[in-house]
Amino acid sequence: MKVLIVGGVAGGASAAARLRRLDENAQIIMFERGPYISYANCGLPYYIGEVIKEKSKLQVQTPEAMSKRFNIDIRVNSEVIKILPQEKAVLVHDLVNDRIYKETYDKLLLSPGAEPIKPNIPGVDSDRVFTLRNIPDTYRIKDFIDSKKPKNAVVVGAGFIGLELAENLHNVGINVSIVELADHVIGPMDFDMAALVHHHIESKNVGLYLNDGVKALYHYDDYSEVELNSGKRIKTDMIVLGIGVRPEVKLAKEAGLALGSRGGIKVNQYMQTSDPDIYAVGDAIEVKDFINGSDTLIPLAGPANKQGRIAADNIAGRKSEYKGTQGTSILKVFDLTVAFTGNNERALNNAGLKYQKIIIHPSSHATYYPGALPMSIKLLFSEDDGKVLGAQIVGYEGVDKRIDVIATTIRAGMTVFDLEELELAYAPPYSSAKDPVNMAGFVAANVLRGDCDVIHWDAVEKRDKERTFLIDVRTPLEYSLGTIEGAVNIPVDNLRNRLEEIPRDKEIIIFCQVGLRGYIACRILMQHGFKSVKNLSGGYKTYEAVTK
Amino acid sequence: MKVLIVGGVAGGASAAARLRRLDENAQIIMFERGPYISYANCGLPYYIGEVIKEKSKLQVQTPEAMSKRFNIDIRVNSEVIKILPQEKAVLVHDLVNDRIYKETYDKLLLSPGAEPIKPNIPGVDSDRVFTLRNIPDTYRIKDFIDSKKPKNAVVVGAGFIGLELAENLHNVGINVSIVELADHVIGPMDFDMAALVHHHIESKNVGLYLNDGVKALYHYDDYSEVELNSGKRIKTDMIVLGIGVRPEVKLAKEAGLALGSRGGIKVNQYMQTSDPDIYAVGDAIEVKDFINGSDTLIPLAGPANKQGRIAADNIAGRKSEYKGTQGTSILKVFDLTVAFTGNNERALNNAGLKYQKIIIHPSSHATYYPGALPMSIKLLFSEDDGKVLGAQIVGYEGVDKRIDVIATTIRAGMTVFDLEELELAYAPPYSSAKDPVNMAGFVAANVLRGDCDVIHWDAVEKRDKERTFLIDVRTPLEYSLGTIEGAVNIPVDNLRNRLEEIPRDKEIIIFCQVGLRGYIACRILMQHGFKSVKNLSGGYKTYEAVTK
Ligand SMILES: Cc1cc2nc3c(=O)[nH]c(=O)nc-3n(C[C@H](O)[C@H](O)[C@H](O)COP(=O)(O)OP(=O)(O)OC[C@H]3O[C@@H](n4cnc5c(N)ncnc54)[C@H](O)[C@@H]3O)c2cc1C
Ligand SMILES: Cc1cc2nc3c(=O)[nH]c(=O)nc-3n(C[C@H](O)[C@H](O)[C@H](O)COP(=O)(O)OP(=O)(O)OC[C@H]3O[C@@H](n4cnc5c(N)ncnc54)[C@H](O)[C@@H]3O)c2cc1C
Ligand SMILES: CC(C)(COP(=O)(O)OP(=O)(O)OC[C@H]1O[C@@H](n2cnc3c(N)ncnc32)[C@H](O)[C@@H]1OP(=O)(O)O)[C@@H](O)C(=O)NCCC(=O)NCCS
Ligand SMILES: CC(C)(COP(=O)(O)OP(=O)(O)OC[C@H]1O[C@@H](n2cnc3c(N)ncnc32)[C@H](O)[C@@H]1OP(=O)(O)O)[C@@H](O)C(=O)NCCC(=O)NCCS
Repeated sequence: MKVLIVGGVAGGASAAARLRRLDENAQIIMFERGPYISYANCGLPYYIGEVIKEKSKLQVQTPEAMSKRFNIDIRVNSEVIKILPQEKAVLVHDLVNDRIYKETYDKLLLSPGAEPIKPNIPGVDSDRVFTLRNIPDTYRIKDFIDSKKPKNAVVVGAGFIGLELAENLHNVGINVSIVELADHVIGPMDFDMAALVHHHIESKNVGLYLNDGVKALYHYDDYSEVELNSGKRIKTDMIVLGIGVRPEVKLAKEAGLALGSRGGIKVNQYMQTSDPDIYAVGDAIEVKDFINGSDTLIPLAGPANKQGRIAADNIAGRKSEYKGTQGTSILKVFDLTVAFTGNNERALNNAGLKYQKIIIHPSSHATYYPGALPMSIKLLFSEDDGKVLGAQIVGYEGVDKRIDVIATTIRAGMTVFDLEELELAYAPPYSSAKDPVNMAGFVAANVLRGDCDVIHWDAVEKRDKERTFLIDVRTPLEYSLGTIEGAVNIPVDNLRNRLEEIPRDKEIIIFCQVGLRGYIACRILMQHGFKSVKNLSGGYKTYEAVTK
Repeated sequence: MKVLIVGGVAGGASAAARLRRLDENAQIIMFERGPYISYANCGLPYYIGEVIKEKSKLQVQTPEAMSKRFNIDIRVNSEVIKILPQEKAVLVHDLVNDRIYKETYDKLLLSPGAEPIKPNIPGVDSDRVFTLRNIPDTYRIKDFIDSKKPKNAVVVGAGFIGLELAENLHNVGINVSIVELADHVIGPMDFDMAALVHHHIESKNVGLYLNDGVKALYHYDDYSEVELNSGKRIKTDMIVLGIGVRPEVKLAKEAGLALGSRGGIKVNQYMQTSDPDIYAVGDAIEVKDFINGSDTLIPLAGPANKQGRIAADNIAGRKSEYKGTQGTSILKVFDLTVAFTGNNERALNNAGLKYQKIIIHPSSHATYYPGALPMSIKLLFSEDDGKVLGAQIVGYEGVDKRIDVIATTIRAGMTVFDLEELELAYAPPYSSAKDPVNMAGFVAANVLRGDCDVIHWDAVEKRDKERTFLIDVRTPLEYSLGTIEGAVNIPVDNLRNRLEEIPRDKEIIIFCQVGLRGYIACRILMQHGFKSVKNLSGGYKTYEAVTK
């Protein structure tokens, strides 16, 4: 069997290695357009920020070492420029010798990745404008910084790569501004959770222009200027674009392979394209959204690696299935860790899935043990059966742990009632006897069981002030330091004695700092015959973060 | 409804709080023998080690604050000395006024915890001999240290509390020796994983006496002496016993409540004892082992808290079930984190469950990003269907995350094939594109699929040297630095060219440093027609740790 692989990084190299392990006799040729294979895409921003100091670290494997170990014919600087499905062959452009040749295959695997989107705006083609995808891009940015010593940089786009770049440019002493068209950073998060990230970014003296797009770039001798849709202008020495990626489908398209509605290569659960001898994996393909079953693009390394492994299985004759992508992601944003898995509200709404949501603000570990840090967890779950549909977490320590646990429960099809029961590891340096994930389960389950209705910050904003009665159940001190306009202060510990102050003909909205005391207050009022009582989910902490 | 609760800490206080939230009208009286309620048992060792500096931090709730918030009648210094089930009443000894009175109940909840085992050896009753269970015990130890300035301490028993105490005594400058009757520390782990902990403890200049028990304690004016079964004698200034706990069942037993075979109070899934009006939770009860269904004692705070919540549900008339305990546990041992969940080998063998096992040594996160640290994961799984049965992890960073993910998969009844698919969060500071848990899944699944047989360190030790051929597939340098006696060195990258050096009539045992190269070598040999090829699981790293 002769197998050709296009693309020598996450999906391609993983497939090649796995295929060799499964089949010692296959002839495997791996083509890579660039000079490097198996590089650490995800490490590139950190090389720019001098967190990763050695160039060699960016290469997980070299062509020499990999071909030695796996007996693979690795051809770098070799671009596959055409697929000839009828002939079962590809045309390869040997970029070093500028020569084109044909190579035949029994099976072909495409893992060409995705390319950074470059908007069609004036000034975008300049040697002060960068995108980041591979090692050469990285060196280009790093060399520019080292030689030109830019003082200011504008990062366009506040997704993963944009934010990682912003942090890393900031790390090497550059003044950074971020421009984002949407109303919040990190598109796959909801606004209420992203708001926490906004505050953190601003606290680092990084400029954050939200709800604003780039209209044009102007380049002068000594500096450039970014003109925004709002008319604002930002002077800068360099511009980095991180506005997203687009699947590399040129080869596939020209070969007549089916593409999906989102523009990626269409594959079945075996990673097979519409041509059964051609497989595709990684950023170039469309995957099934694990939550709602729709077709989607999720360019992440974990899925790419796993898909490569699965494609190799199938090429080697083992039926192995890919069951969809949840989009579990994590991101360091300065001191913060931001992570999510599953669907956000927009995705759920688009898919027409009925959901409920809660926000809590637990501590990373037992508060009596030093170093406990706050985190915020938003949990989205099915209104019908409590199935966990998504989670977003922002915090410092232990965010990665909680997102992975929740991601696992989603994979298992578990419900919020299962979260209540999870038996997670507790000792004071690591967690609490009721882990934040358990706590999210309790709070969510209480909503579904009707033990405590919740209301969210936006509904509080929009409340009918005539018909609602807003109670701040925190202490007088907390109340005096800032509350929601119109709230009456009745501390939870006094509530039982002050019931007569609360009107029985209005909807009662309760809030405390994070939601816990509000819940207790809610339970007290409900059992004293108040009919419509709601607890502000996430409490004043979320309200303040989102509205201020 | 009038509910009495015996014990005001993890199980008892949680139940009281939950019950009030569910039932605003119940009369709730909580009795606590000691002066404190709701204390942080798990933090006590860290107060001794001055990691937790303020006494107040040890109390999560005070009687005043808790009764205010939850309208609970909290009676400290009040020991329940007898249950009168026929009368539905208890006798209470008011320890302050030394007065005994009767209190009736509709429902009674027992959460009396467990008491430290004190062996019956000469010299055990001395003011230089300590156990640790509650705040007064803690102050006793701390005061002794502050006033007597002991230079040396012996900790008897190398379980959780013993090791936490050893670390914390060491932290305040005391010379510590640990004595343990078994051949390894931390009973619920297997020897091969505990061996890693032994090396770490010894590296901290803490004495470790394994396979040895305490025969007698001798106390002289200026010092004491611990005599071991082996005849060894250790001079010391203080002795702390951490040899385990025994459920507090005196009350229950005298009241005629059924006890289980392990000596704990017997309860059903609703936390009901043999008397349907009496519930029991926490360290005092027997639980179902979640893996093998047997009755067992698992004294942990997470389960105690959850059982308290479930008991309250049932008392309040909601059917709520406890489904068993996995024993998910975690422990800081100096710089190490040690964690486990599910069954160890002994438990599986006792239960007659057929299992397979693998050990891997992944990194906490991508190695190209600074700060990646090694960890070792042992995974135990069903030979039949791959169901995850247990895991043990020793390492530095990210151990808590991986144990929680695996604990979650156990709760969900997932298999090693599911571990392969888990979509966990990856960015370089947090993990690798194939997370250690995925990796454990791959390796385990490869065993079950017959892609690579594994052999374990003990079988290598006991191998028939005539019939086996041992290959070290690491580099010549690694080989020269230490290998398994009798091993031939054929680096994996040369293997394909040196097949003729390998006998075809012997069992081939391959090893590398951690198992990865060994696996690749194994695949190569199997496909070149070698019949019996086995890879040493965990590689030389495990072998060396266990045998040296
Ligand atoms: C800066 C950056 C940071 C990232 N951080 C993270 C992160 O933290 N976590 C995460 O999960 N993901 C991250 N990603 C995404 C992750 O790297 C990708 O999802 C993953 O690499 C996709 O694998 P792939 O094999 O599809 O494509 P790639 O890994 O991009 O490999 C595709 C390769 O194919 C080559 N190629 C394309 N066309 C041809 C052709 N015609 N002929 C020959 N070769 C060709 C390309 O040169 C490229 O090297 C990051 C990506 C970038 C760029
Ligand atoms: C030093 C130490 C460290 C620990 N570390 C951890 C850890 O890191 N992680 C973990 O999961 N677990 C840990 N534990 C175990 C955990 O604390 C227990 O599992 C948990 O507290 C059990 O809850 P419980 O309600 O059953 O008993 P307890 O919390 O012990 O409460 C029982 C209470 O009942 C009172 N009582 C007993 N009899 C009577 C009576 N007749 N009348 C009135 N009152 C009575 C006792 O005085 C006691 O205060 C640790 C325990 C100790 C001692
Ligand atoms: C370097 C690269 C080619 C390695 O691919 P790989 O060999 O499949 O992956 P690994 O080195 O992680 O090894 C995993 C294999 O070793 C096995 N293995 C790992 N540890 C083992 C152990 N201790 N014992 C036995 N087997 C082990 C696994 O089971 C797996 O084999 P399988 O797939 O046949 O089951 C590929 O990962 C790559 O190109 N990475 C860099 C690019 C990239 O991912 N970029 C995006 C992220 S920055
Ligand atoms: C202090 C103590 C009495 C508190 O018990 P508790 O009130 O049940 O527990 P918590 O304070 O964690 O609050 C959890 C409750 O608040 C709810 N809650 C938590 N955060 C919330 C939020 N943000 N919004 C709404 N509700 C929230 C939970 O749903 C849960 O209520 P439920 O059980 O009715 O579902 C008890 O935990 C205790 O005694 N702890 C110390 C002893 C101990 O555990 N020792 C061993 C470990 S060291």
